[in-house]
Amino acid sequence: MRVAVIGVGLIGGSIALAAGDAAGAEVVAWDTDPAALDTAARIGAIEQPAASLEQAVASAEAVFVAVPVGALPDTVARVLAAAPRDCVVTDVGSTKRAIVAGQDDQRFVGGHPLAGAETAGVAHARTDLFDGATWYLTPTPRSSAVLYERLHQLLVALGARPEPIDADTHDAILALVSHLPHVLANALVAEATEALASERSRLPASGPSFRDATRVAGAPSAIWTDIYLSNRDALIAQLDAFVERLRSVRVLLADGDAAAISAWNEAAAEHRRRLLHDQPGGGAPPTA
Amino acid sequence: MRVAVIGVGLIGGSIALAAGDAAGAEVVAWDTDPAALDTAARIGAIEQPAASLEQAVASAEAVFVAVPVGALPDTVARVLAAAPRDCVVTDVGSTKRAIVAGQDDQRFVGGHPLAGAETAGVAHARTDLFDGATWYLTPTPRSSAVLYERLHQLLVALGARPEPIDADTHDAILALVSHLPHVLANALVAEATEALASERSRLPASGPSFRDATRVAGAPSAIWTDIYLSNRDALIAQLDAFVERLRSVRVLLADGDAAAISAWNEAAAEHRRRLLHDQPGGGAPPTA
Repeated sequence: MRVAVIGVGLIGGSIALAAGDAAGAEVVAWDTDPAALDTAARIGAIEQPAASLEQAVASAEAVFVAVPVGALPDTVARVLAAAPRDCVVTDVGSTKRAIVAGQDDQRFVGGHPLAGAETAGVAHARTDLFDGATWYLTPTPRSSAVLYERLHQLLVALGARPEPIDADTHDAILALVSHLPHVLANALVAEATEALASERSRLPASGPSFRDATRVAGAPSAIWTDIYLSNRDALIAQLDAFVERLRSVRVLLADGDAAAISAWNEAAAEHRRRLLHDQPGGGAPPTA
Repeated sequence: MRVAVIGVGLIGGSIALAAGDAAGAEVVAWDTDPAALDTAARIGAIEQPAASLEQAVASAEAVFVAVPVGALPDTVARVLAAAPRDCVVTDVGSTKRAIVAGQDDQRFVGGHPLAGAETAGVAHARTDLFDGATWYLTPTPRSSAVLYERLHQLLVALGARPEPIDADTHDAILALVSHLPHVLANALVAEATEALASERSRLPASGPSFRDATRVAGAPSAIWTDIYLSNRDALIAQLDAFVERLRSVRVLLADGDAAAISAWNEAAAEHRRRLLHDQPGGGAPPTA
Protein backbone atom coordinates (compact mmCIF):
# COMPACT_ATOMS: atom_id res chain seq x y z
CA MET A 1 0.00 0.00 0.00
CA ARG A 2 1.30 3.43 -0.95
CA VAL A 3 0.22 6.06 1.60
CA ALA A 4 0.69 9.83 1.31
CA VAL A 5 0.53 12.17 4.30
CA ILE A 6 -0.03 15.87 3.68
CA GLY A 7 0.91 17.87 6.76
CA VAL A 8 3.28 16.30 9.26
CA GLY A 9 2.53 17.50 12.76
CA LEU A 10 1.97 15.10 15.64
CA ILE A 11 -1.04 13.49 13.93
CA GLY A 12 0.37 13.36 10.39
CA GLY A 13 3.76 12.23 11.66
CA SER A 14 2.18 9.49 13.77
CA ILE A 15 0.10 8.32 10.80
CA ALA A 16 3.28 8.13 8.72
CA LEU A 17 5.10 6.19 11.44
CA ALA A 18 2.24 3.78 12.09
CA ALA A 19 1.52 3.26 8.38
CA GLY A 20 5.15 2.31 7.81
CA ASP A 21 5.66 0.26 10.97
CA ALA A 22 2.31 -1.33 11.73
CA ALA A 23 0.70 -1.41 8.29
CA GLY A 24 3.86 -2.05 6.23
CA ALA A 25 3.00 0.73 3.83
CA GLU A 26 5.30 2.77 1.66
CA VAL A 27 4.90 6.31 2.99
CA VAL A 28 5.45 9.63 1.20
CA ALA A 29 4.85 12.96 2.90
CA TRP A 30 4.71 16.64 2.14
CA ASP A 31 4.33 19.75 4.29
CA THR A 32 4.41 23.50 3.62
CA ASP A 33 7.14 23.63 6.29
CA PRO A 34 10.40 21.99 5.07
CA ALA A 35 11.68 21.76 8.67
CA ALA A 36 8.73 19.54 9.64
CA LEU A 37 9.56 17.24 6.72
CA ASP A 38 13.21 17.10 7.77
CA THR A 39 12.18 16.14 11.30
CA ALA A 40 9.78 13.51 9.95
CA ALA A 41 12.63 11.98 7.95
CA ARG A 42 15.00 12.18 10.92
CA ILE A 43 12.62 10.25 13.22
CA GLY A 44 12.07 7.65 10.51
CA ALA A 45 8.45 8.52 9.78
CA ILE A 46 9.22 8.91 6.06
CA GLU A 47 11.97 7.78 3.71
CA GLN A 48 12.30 11.15 2.06
CA PRO A 49 10.17 14.25 1.60
CA ALA A 50 8.22 14.74 -1.60
CA ALA A 51 9.06 17.79 -3.68
CA SER A 52 5.43 18.93 -3.83
CA LEU A 53 1.95 17.98 -2.72
CA GLU A 54 1.23 16.80 -6.26
CA GLN A 55 4.29 14.56 -6.32
CA ALA A 56 3.44 13.12 -2.90
CA VAL A 57 -0.02 11.97 -3.94
CA ALA A 58 0.72 11.10 -7.60
CA SER A 59 0.79 7.34 -7.10
CA ALA A 60 -0.86 7.04 -3.69
CA GLU A 61 -3.58 4.54 -2.83
CA ALA A 62 -4.56 6.43 0.34
CA VAL A 63 -3.97 10.07 1.28
CA PHE A 64 -4.28 11.55 4.78
CA VAL A 65 -4.68 15.34 4.86
CA ALA A 66 -3.50 16.37 8.35
CA VAL A 67 -3.57 20.17 8.19
CA PRO A 68 -5.49 22.65 10.40
CA VAL A 69 -9.25 22.79 9.81
CA GLY A 70 -9.06 26.19 8.12
CA ALA A 71 -6.61 24.93 5.49
CA LEU A 72 -8.58 21.75 4.74
CA PRO A 73 -10.87 22.86 1.88
CA ASP A 74 -8.05 24.14 -0.34
CA THR A 75 -5.65 21.34 0.55
CA VAL A 76 -8.19 18.56 0.02
CA ALA A 77 -9.18 20.10 -3.33
CA ARG A 78 -5.52 20.14 -4.45
CA VAL A 79 -5.08 16.54 -3.32
CA LEU A 80 -8.18 15.35 -5.17
CA ALA A 81 -7.02 17.14 -8.32
CA ALA A 82 -3.65 15.38 -8.22
CA ALA A 83 -4.49 11.95 -6.77
CA PRO A 84 -5.13 8.85 -8.90
CA ARG A 85 -8.71 7.84 -9.72
CA ASP A 86 -8.48 4.79 -7.46
CA CYS A 87 -7.20 6.56 -4.32
CA VAL A 88 -9.05 7.17 -1.07
CA VAL A 89 -8.56 10.67 0.39
CA THR A 90 -9.35 11.48 4.02
CA ASP A 91 -8.66 14.27 6.52
CA VAL A 92 -8.18 14.37 10.30
CA GLY A 93 -10.00 17.62 11.13
CA SER A 94 -11.81 18.09 14.46
CA THR A 95 -15.00 19.37 12.79
CA LYS A 96 -16.60 17.56 9.88
CA ARG A 97 -19.67 19.30 8.42
CA ALA A 98 -17.85 22.01 6.46
CA ILE A 99 -15.30 19.77 4.76
CA VAL A 100 -17.81 16.97 4.08
CA ALA A 101 -20.45 19.34 2.65
CA GLY A 102 -17.83 20.94 0.40
CA GLN A 103 -16.81 17.67 -1.28
CA ASP A 104 -18.75 15.55 -3.71
CA ASP A 105 -15.80 13.50 -4.94
CA GLN A 106 -16.48 9.79 -4.44
CA ARG A 107 -12.84 9.31 -3.33
CA PHE A 108 -13.25 11.49 -0.24
CA VAL A 109 -14.20 10.19 3.22
CA GLY A 110 -13.95 12.62 6.15
CA GLY A 111 -12.18 11.39 9.28
CA HIS A 112 -11.27 12.44 12.83
CA PRO A 113 -9.00 10.39 15.11
CA LEU A 114 -9.60 11.04 18.82
CA ALA A 115 -5.98 10.83 19.79
CA GLY A 116 -3.21 13.08 20.96
CA ALA A 117 -2.84 16.67 20.04
CA GLU A 118 -1.17 18.60 17.27
CA THR A 119 0.54 20.80 19.87
CA ALA A 120 3.64 18.84 20.21
CA GLY A 121 4.64 18.71 16.55
CA VAL A 122 6.11 15.90 14.53
CA ALA A 123 9.04 15.50 16.90
CA HIS A 124 6.59 13.86 19.33
CA ALA A 125 5.00 11.57 16.77
CA ARG A 126 4.48 8.00 17.99
CA THR A 127 3.75 4.81 16.16
CA ASP A 128 1.25 3.79 18.86
CA LEU A 129 -0.65 7.09 19.03
CA PHE A 130 -3.81 5.52 17.62
CA ASP A 131 -3.75 2.24 19.56
CA GLY A 132 -7.32 1.65 20.64
CA ALA A 133 -8.38 5.18 19.70
CA THR A 134 -11.80 5.91 18.21
CA TRP A 135 -11.35 7.18 14.64
CA TYR A 136 -14.56 8.73 13.35
CA LEU A 137 -15.33 8.36 9.64
CA THR A 138 -18.03 10.38 7.89
CA PRO A 139 -18.79 8.63 4.59
CA THR A 140 -21.61 10.12 2.49
CA PRO A 141 -23.91 8.42 -0.04
CA ARG A 142 -21.45 9.65 -2.69
CA SER A 143 -18.42 7.97 -1.10
CA SER A 144 -17.09 4.87 -2.84
CA ALA A 145 -17.76 1.81 -0.70
CA VAL A 146 -14.63 0.10 -1.99
CA LEU A 147 -12.43 3.06 -1.06
CA TYR A 148 -14.21 3.46 2.32
CA GLU A 149 -13.49 -0.20 3.08
CA ARG A 150 -9.82 0.25 2.11
CA LEU A 151 -9.52 3.21 4.50
CA HIS A 152 -11.32 1.29 7.25
CA GLN A 153 -8.88 -1.61 7.00
CA LEU A 154 -5.92 0.74 6.94
CA LEU A 155 -7.10 2.46 10.15
CA VAL A 156 -7.48 -0.92 11.86
CA ALA A 157 -3.91 -1.68 10.78
CA LEU A 158 -2.86 1.61 12.44
CA GLY A 159 -4.35 0.28 15.69
CA ALA A 160 -7.45 2.49 15.65
CA ARG A 161 -11.14 1.69 16.00
CA PRO A 162 -12.90 3.24 12.99
CA GLU A 163 -16.46 4.33 13.75
CA PRO A 164 -18.84 5.67 11.10
CA ILE A 165 -20.92 8.70 12.09
CA ASP A 166 -22.77 11.40 10.20
CA ALA A 167 -21.07 14.78 10.16
CA ASP A 168 -23.94 16.60 11.95
CA THR A 169 -23.91 14.19 14.88
CA HIS A 170 -20.12 14.27 15.02
CA ASP A 171 -20.00 18.04 15.26
CA ALA A 172 -22.80 18.20 17.85
CA ILE A 173 -21.11 15.60 20.06
CA LEU A 174 -17.69 17.17 19.74
CA ALA A 175 -19.16 20.61 20.51
CA LEU A 176 -20.40 19.14 23.78
CA VAL A 177 -17.57 16.87 24.89
CA SER A 178 -14.59 18.82 23.56
CA HIS A 179 -15.31 22.34 22.34
CA LEU A 180 -17.57 23.33 25.25
CA PRO A 181 -15.08 22.09 27.88
CA HIS A 182 -12.42 24.18 26.16
CA VAL A 183 -14.68 27.26 26.31
CA LEU A 184 -15.43 26.59 30.00
CA ALA A 185 -11.72 26.27 30.74
CA ASN A 186 -10.99 29.57 29.00
CA ALA A 187 -13.86 31.27 30.85
CA LEU A 188 -12.71 29.89 34.21
CA VAL A 189 -9.17 31.21 33.92
CA ALA A 190 -10.50 34.59 32.78
CA GLU A 191 -12.90 34.70 35.74
CA ALA A 192 -10.20 33.64 38.21
CA THR A 193 -7.72 36.16 36.84
CA GLU A 194 -10.21 38.99 37.25
CA ALA A 195 -11.52 37.89 40.64
CA LEU A 196 -8.14 37.22 42.23
CA ALA A 197 -6.88 40.58 40.97
CA SER A 198 -9.78 42.38 42.64
CA GLU A 199 -9.35 40.38 45.85
CA ARG A 200 -5.63 41.16 45.73
CA SER A 201 -5.20 37.49 46.49
CA ARG A 202 -3.35 34.66 44.86
CA LEU A 203 -4.62 31.31 43.78
CA PRO A 204 -4.51 28.66 46.50
CA ALA A 205 -1.34 26.72 45.86
CA SER A 206 -3.17 23.42 45.69
CA GLY A 207 -6.38 23.45 43.72
CA PRO A 208 -6.77 20.11 41.95
CA SER A 209 -10.36 20.73 40.85
CA PHE A 210 -9.42 24.10 39.31
CA ARG A 211 -6.33 22.61 37.70
CA ASP A 212 -8.31 19.78 36.12
CA ALA A 213 -11.11 22.10 35.03
CA THR A 214 -8.68 24.46 33.28
CA ARG A 215 -6.18 21.95 31.89
CA VAL A 216 -7.13 22.76 28.29
CA ALA A 217 -7.42 26.54 28.70
CA GLY A 218 -5.69 28.37 25.86
CA ALA A 219 -5.10 25.31 23.69
CA PRO A 220 -3.08 26.23 20.57
CA SER A 221 -4.86 28.98 18.63
CA ALA A 222 -3.42 27.77 15.33
CA ILE A 223 -5.66 24.74 15.70
CA TRP A 224 -8.46 25.95 17.93
CA THR A 225 -9.48 29.19 16.26
CA ASP A 226 -10.44 27.13 13.20
CA ILE A 227 -12.32 24.62 15.33
CA TYR A 228 -14.30 27.33 17.15
CA LEU A 229 -15.10 29.09 13.86
CA SER A 230 -16.07 26.01 11.88
CA ASN A 231 -18.32 24.62 14.62
CA ARG A 232 -19.66 27.80 16.15
CA ASP A 233 -23.36 27.16 15.50
CA ALA A 234 -23.19 23.76 17.23
CA LEU A 235 -21.04 25.22 20.00
CA ILE A 236 -23.42 28.14 20.55
CA ALA A 237 -26.30 25.68 20.83
CA GLN A 238 -24.39 23.74 23.49
CA LEU A 239 -23.46 26.97 25.30
CA ASP A 240 -27.11 28.02 25.42
CA ALA A 241 -28.19 24.65 26.78
CA PHE A 242 -25.40 24.76 29.33
CA VAL A 243 -26.34 28.25 30.54
CA GLU A 244 -29.94 27.04 30.97
CA ARG A 245 -28.65 24.17 33.06
CA LEU A 246 -26.56 26.50 35.22
CA ARG A 247 -29.72 28.57 35.78
CA SER A 248 -31.48 25.49 37.13
CA VAL A 249 -28.52 24.82 39.44
CA ARG A 250 -28.80 28.40 40.65
CA VAL A 251 -32.45 27.82 41.57
CA LEU A 252 -31.47 24.62 43.38
CA LEU A 253 -28.82 26.44 45.41
CA ALA A 254 -31.04 29.41 46.16
CA ASP A 255 -33.76 27.07 47.46
CA GLY A 256 -31.23 25.61 49.88
CA ASP A 257 -32.90 22.22 50.10
CA ALA A 258 -30.22 19.80 51.32
CA ALA A 259 -32.06 16.69 50.09
CA ALA A 260 -32.49 18.17 46.60
CA ILE A 261 -28.83 19.23 46.43
CA SER A 262 -27.72 15.75 47.52
CA ALA A 263 -29.97 14.12 44.92
CA TRP A 264 -28.57 16.38 42.18
CA ASN A 265 -25.03 15.56 43.23
CA GLU A 266 -25.70 11.81 43.45
CA ALA A 267 -27.18 11.94 39.95
CA ALA A 268 -23.96 13.57 38.71
CA ALA A 269 -21.90 10.78 40.24
CA GLU A 270 -24.11 8.21 38.53
CA HIS A 271 -24.02 10.10 35.20
CA ARG A 272 -20.25 10.21 35.20
CA ARG A 273 -19.98 6.53 36.05
CA ARG A 274 -22.26 5.64 33.14
CA LEU A 275 -20.58 8.01 30.68
CA LEU A 276 -17.03 6.95 31.47
CA HIS A 277 -17.40 3.54 33.06
CA ASP A 278 -15.44 1.66 30.43
CA GLN A 279 -12.97 4.42 29.66
CA PRO A 280 -9.42 4.99 30.86
CA GLY A 281 -9.26 7.51 33.70
CA GLY A 282 -12.99 7.17 34.32
CA GLY A 283 -12.71 6.16 37.96
CA ALA A 284 -14.12 7.67 41.11
CA PRO A 285 -13.82 11.43 41.49
CA PRO A 286 -11.61 13.14 44.03
CA THR A 287 -13.26 15.75 46.22
CA ALA A 288 -10.84 18.63 46.69
CA MET B 1 2.35 18.57 72.78
CA ARG B 2 -0.94 16.80 73.38
CA VAL B 3 -3.13 16.85 70.25
CA ALA B 4 -6.73 15.71 70.00
CA VAL B 5 -8.40 14.86 66.70
CA ILE B 6 -12.19 14.76 66.55
CA GLY B 7 -13.34 12.92 63.44
CA VAL B 8 -10.92 10.52 61.79
CA GLY B 9 -11.48 10.40 58.04
CA LEU B 10 -8.65 10.92 55.58
CA ILE B 11 -7.94 14.44 56.88
CA GLY B 12 -8.33 13.72 60.59
CA GLY B 13 -6.41 10.47 60.27
CA SER B 14 -3.59 12.18 58.37
CA ILE B 15 -3.42 14.94 61.00
CA ALA B 16 -3.13 12.26 63.69
CA LEU B 17 -0.40 10.43 61.77
CA ALA B 18 1.59 13.56 60.97
CA ALA B 19 1.20 15.01 64.47
CA GLY B 20 2.59 11.81 65.95
CA ASP B 21 5.31 11.18 63.35
CA ALA B 22 6.46 14.60 62.21
CA ALA B 23 5.55 16.75 65.18
CA GLY B 24 6.25 14.20 67.90
CA ALA B 25 2.93 14.88 69.57
CA GLU B 26 0.90 12.61 71.82
CA VAL B 27 -2.31 12.05 69.85
CA VAL B 28 -5.77 11.17 71.13
CA ALA B 29 -8.74 10.78 68.80
CA TRP B 30 -12.47 10.31 68.85
CA ASP B 31 -15.10 9.67 66.21
CA THR B 32 -18.82 8.95 66.22
CA ASP B 33 -17.96 5.83 64.22
CA PRO B 34 -16.08 3.23 66.34
CA ALA B 35 -14.92 1.41 63.18
CA ALA B 36 -13.07 4.55 62.00
CA LEU B 37 -11.30 4.72 65.38
CA ASP B 38 -10.35 1.05 65.17
CA THR B 39 -8.88 1.61 61.72
CA ALA B 40 -7.01 4.69 62.96
CA ALA B 41 -5.47 2.60 65.74
CA ARG B 42 -4.66 -0.24 63.35
CA ILE B 43 -2.72 2.03 60.95
CA GLY B 44 -0.86 3.57 63.89
CA ALA B 45 -2.44 7.02 63.68
CA ILE B 46 -3.46 6.85 67.35
CA GLU B 47 -2.41 4.83 70.38
CA GLN B 48 -5.95 4.09 71.46
CA PRO B 49 -9.39 5.60 70.95
CA ALA B 50 -10.82 7.95 73.53
CA ALA B 51 -14.06 6.88 75.20
CA SER B 52 -15.78 10.16 74.41
CA LEU B 53 -15.24 13.52 72.76
CA GLU B 54 -14.92 15.05 76.20
CA GLN B 55 -12.28 12.56 77.31
CA ALA B 56 -10.32 13.10 74.07
CA VAL B 57 -9.99 16.85 74.54
CA ALA B 58 -9.79 16.94 78.38
CA SER B 59 -6.05 17.55 78.55
CA ALA B 60 -5.32 18.63 74.96
CA GLU B 61 -3.19 21.60 73.99
CA ALA B 62 -4.54 21.60 70.42
CA VAL B 63 -7.75 20.13 69.03
CA PHE B 64 -8.51 19.53 65.34
CA VAL B 65 -12.21 19.14 64.54
CA ALA B 66 -12.29 17.21 61.26
CA VAL B 67 -15.98 16.51 60.74
CA PRO B 68 -18.25 17.49 57.80
CA VAL B 69 -19.12 21.19 57.57
CA GLY B 70 -22.72 20.60 58.65
CA ALA B 71 -21.63 18.95 61.91
CA LEU B 72 -19.05 21.63 62.76
CA PRO B 73 -21.11 24.09 64.85
CA ASP B 74 -22.32 21.50 67.35
CA THR B 75 -19.03 19.60 67.48
CA VAL B 76 -16.89 22.72 67.93
CA ALA B 77 -19.22 23.92 70.69
CA ARG B 78 -18.89 20.59 72.52
CA VAL B 79 -15.11 20.69 72.14
CA LEU B 80 -14.86 24.26 73.48
CA ALA B 81 -17.05 23.32 76.44
CA ALA B 82 -14.77 20.41 77.34
CA ALA B 83 -11.30 21.65 76.35
CA PRO B 84 -8.84 23.27 78.80
CA ARG B 85 -8.65 27.07 79.00
CA ASP B 86 -5.20 27.07 77.40
CA CYS B 87 -6.04 24.94 74.34
CA VAL B 88 -6.28 26.03 70.72
CA VAL B 89 -9.27 24.61 68.83
CA THR B 90 -9.43 24.57 65.04
CA ASP B 91 -11.47 22.92 62.30
CA VAL B 92 -10.73 21.77 58.73
CA GLY B 93 -13.99 22.74 57.02
CA SER B 94 -14.05 23.82 53.36
CA THR B 95 -16.17 26.92 54.09
CA LYS B 96 -15.29 29.32 56.85
CA ARG B 97 -17.78 32.18 57.34
CA ALA B 98 -20.50 30.22 59.14
CA ILE B 99 -18.25 28.51 61.66
CA VAL B 100 -16.13 31.62 62.29
CA ALA B 101 -19.13 33.92 62.71
CA GLY B 102 -20.71 31.47 65.15
CA GLN B 103 -17.73 31.44 67.54
CA ASP B 104 -16.51 34.17 69.85
CA ASP B 105 -14.30 31.95 71.98
CA GLN B 106 -10.73 33.25 71.97
CA ARG B 107 -9.42 29.67 71.75
CA PHE B 108 -10.97 29.08 68.32
CA VAL B 109 -9.15 29.66 65.01
CA GLY B 110 -10.84 28.41 61.84
CA GLY B 111 -8.73 26.42 59.40
CA HIS B 112 -8.85 24.71 56.01
CA PRO B 113 -6.04 22.55 54.62
CA LEU B 114 -6.00 22.36 50.81
CA ALA B 115 -5.00 18.75 50.66
CA GLY B 116 -6.46 15.43 49.74
CA ALA B 117 -10.05 14.50 50.06
CA GLU B 118 -12.22 12.97 52.72
CA THR B 119 -13.47 10.42 50.19
CA ALA B 120 -11.04 7.72 50.88
CA GLY B 121 -11.51 7.46 54.65
CA VAL B 122 -8.97 6.96 57.39
CA ALA B 123 -7.60 3.79 55.78
CA HIS B 124 -5.94 6.06 53.20
CA ALA B 125 -4.51 8.52 55.73
CA ARG B 126 -0.92 9.54 55.03
CA THR B 127 1.68 11.19 57.20
CA ASP B 128 2.81 13.35 54.25
CA LEU B 129 -0.66 14.48 53.12
CA PHE B 130 0.04 18.10 54.10
CA ASP B 131 3.60 18.38 52.79
CA GLY B 132 3.81 21.76 51.11
CA ALA B 133 0.02 22.23 51.20
CA THR B 134 -1.55 25.63 51.79
CA TRP B 135 -3.44 25.56 55.11
CA TYR B 136 -5.74 28.54 55.44
CA LEU B 137 -6.27 30.01 58.92
CA THR B 138 -9.01 32.50 59.69
CA PRO B 139 -8.14 34.16 63.02
CA THR B 140 -10.47 36.94 64.18
CA PRO B 141 -9.73 39.93 66.44
CA ARG B 142 -11.07 37.79 69.30
CA SER B 143 -8.61 34.93 68.66
CA SER B 144 -5.75 34.56 71.15
CA ALA B 145 -2.46 35.46 69.47
CA VAL B 146 -0.56 33.00 71.63
CA LEU B 147 -2.86 30.14 70.70
CA TYR B 148 -2.85 31.19 67.03
CA GLU B 149 0.94 31.08 67.06
CA ARG B 150 0.93 27.63 68.66
CA LEU B 151 -1.38 26.33 65.93
CA HIS B 152 0.73 27.98 63.23
CA GLN B 153 3.89 26.25 64.47
CA LEU B 154 2.09 22.93 64.74
CA LEU B 155 0.90 23.19 61.12
CA VAL B 156 4.44 23.94 59.96
CA ALA B 157 5.56 20.84 61.87
CA LEU B 158 2.90 18.87 59.95
CA GLY B 159 4.60 20.04 56.73
CA ALA B 160 1.93 22.57 55.75
CA ARG B 161 2.18 26.24 54.78
CA PRO B 162 -0.24 28.15 57.06
CA GLU B 163 -1.74 31.21 55.40
CA PRO B 164 -3.97 33.70 57.25
CA ILE B 165 -7.01 34.91 55.34
CA ASP B 166 -10.33 36.47 56.31
CA ALA B 167 -13.32 34.17 56.12
CA ASP B 168 -15.16 36.24 53.49
CA THR B 169 -12.23 36.21 51.08
CA HIS B 170 -11.64 32.51 51.73
CA ASP B 171 -15.21 31.58 50.89
CA ALA B 172 -15.30 33.80 47.77
CA ILE B 173 -12.04 32.32 46.44
CA LEU B 174 -13.06 28.76 47.20
CA ALA B 175 -16.44 29.35 45.56
CA LEU B 176 -14.55 30.28 42.40
CA VAL B 177 -11.66 27.81 42.33
CA SER B 178 -13.32 24.77 43.89
CA HIS B 179 -17.09 24.96 44.31
CA LEU B 180 -17.82 26.44 40.86
CA PRO B 181 -15.64 23.83 39.06
CA HIS B 182 -17.59 21.13 40.92
CA VAL B 183 -20.89 22.66 39.76
CA LEU B 184 -19.62 22.88 36.16
CA ALA B 185 -18.52 19.24 36.29
CA ASN B 186 -21.95 18.17 37.56
CA ALA B 187 -23.68 20.27 34.88
CA LEU B 188 -21.45 18.85 32.11
CA VAL B 189 -22.20 15.23 32.91
CA ALA B 190 -25.92 16.02 33.15
CA GLU B 191 -25.79 17.79 29.77
CA ALA B 192 -23.81 14.99 28.15
CA THR B 193 -26.11 12.33 29.56
CA GLU B 194 -29.16 14.08 28.15
CA ALA B 195 -27.61 14.98 24.79
CA LEU B 196 -26.07 11.58 24.09
CA ALA B 197 -29.37 9.91 24.97
CA SER B 198 -31.22 12.06 22.44
CA GLU B 199 -28.51 11.49 19.80
CA ARG B 200 -28.71 7.77 20.55
CA SER B 201 -24.94 7.94 20.56
CA ARG B 202 -22.27 7.04 23.02
CA LEU B 203 -19.45 9.13 24.37
CA PRO B 204 -16.31 9.07 22.23
CA ALA B 205 -14.06 6.50 23.83
CA SER B 206 -11.21 8.97 24.19
CA GLY B 207 -12.20 12.42 25.42
CA PRO B 208 -9.41 13.78 27.60
CA SER B 209 -10.85 17.31 27.82
CA PHE B 210 -14.26 15.99 28.90
CA ARG B 211 -12.65 13.59 31.36
CA ASP B 212 -10.58 16.35 32.97
CA ALA B 213 -13.52 18.76 33.02
CA THR B 214 -15.75 16.25 34.80
CA ARG B 215 -13.20 14.58 37.08
CA VAL B 216 -14.90 15.95 40.23
CA ALA B 217 -18.51 15.39 39.11
CA GLY B 218 -20.56 13.86 41.90
CA ALA B 219 -17.97 14.29 44.64
CA PRO B 220 -19.19 12.68 47.91
CA SER B 221 -22.53 14.18 48.91
CA ALA B 222 -21.82 13.60 52.62
CA ILE B 223 -19.19 16.32 52.29
CA TRP B 224 -20.36 18.40 49.37
CA THR B 225 -24.00 19.01 50.21
CA ASP B 226 -22.81 20.87 53.32
CA ILE B 227 -20.25 22.83 51.29
CA TYR B 228 -22.81 23.88 48.66
CA LEU B 229 -25.32 24.86 51.36
CA SER B 230 -22.94 26.77 53.59
CA ASN B 231 -21.40 28.74 50.73
CA ARG B 232 -24.37 29.11 48.43
CA ASP B 233 -24.50 32.91 48.39
CA ALA B 234 -20.83 33.15 47.35
CA LEU B 235 -21.29 30.31 44.87
CA ILE B 236 -24.40 31.91 43.35
CA ALA B 237 -22.45 35.15 42.88
CA GLN B 238 -19.70 33.24 41.06
CA LEU B 239 -22.27 31.37 38.97
CA ASP B 240 -23.88 34.65 37.91
CA ALA B 241 -20.52 36.13 36.95
CA PHE B 242 -19.63 32.98 35.06
CA VAL B 243 -22.90 32.98 33.09
CA GLU B 244 -22.24 36.60 32.13
CA ARG B 245 -18.82 35.59 30.88
CA LEU B 246 -20.27 32.73 28.84
CA ARG B 247 -22.67 35.24 27.28
CA SER B 248 -19.70 37.35 26.16
CA VAL B 249 -18.08 34.23 24.66
CA ARG B 250 -21.34 33.55 22.82
CA VAL B 251 -21.18 37.04 21.29
CA LEU B 252 -17.56 36.44 20.30
CA LEU B 253 -18.46 33.15 18.59
CA ALA B 254 -21.53 34.59 16.88
CA ASP B 255 -19.45 37.46 15.48
CA GLY B 256 -17.12 34.88 13.92
CA ASP B 257 -14.07 37.16 13.94
CA ALA B 258 -11.05 34.85 13.75
CA ALA B 259 -8.61 37.45 15.09
CA ALA B 260 -10.84 38.18 18.11
CA ILE B 261 -11.30 34.46 18.85
CA SER B 262 -7.53 33.92 18.63
CA ALA B 263 -6.86 36.87 20.95
CA TRP B 264 -9.39 35.53 23.47
CA ASN B 265 -7.79 32.10 23.34
CA GLU B 266 -4.25 33.46 23.64
CA ALA B 267 -5.35 35.47 26.69
CA ALA B 268 -6.65 32.25 28.27
CA ALA B 269 -3.28 30.56 27.71
CA GLU B 270 -1.54 33.50 29.35
CA HIS B 271 -4.04 33.61 32.24
CA ARG B 272 -3.53 29.96 33.00
CA ARG B 273 0.25 30.30 32.88
CA ARG B 274 0.11 33.18 35.37
CA LEU B 275 -2.41 31.51 37.67
CA LEU B 276 -0.65 28.16 37.84
CA HIS B 277 2.92 28.94 36.81
CA ASP B 278 4.50 27.90 40.10
CA GLN B 279 2.10 25.09 40.86
CA PRO B 280 2.40 21.35 40.37
CA GLY B 281 0.59 20.21 37.24
CA GLY B 282 0.39 23.76 35.89
CA GLY B 283 2.22 23.07 32.65
CA ALA B 284 1.18 23.57 29.04
CA PRO B 285 -2.32 22.46 28.10
CA PRO B 286 -3.09 19.50 25.85
CA THR B 287 -5.40 20.19 22.93
CA ALA B 288 -7.66 17.18 22.49
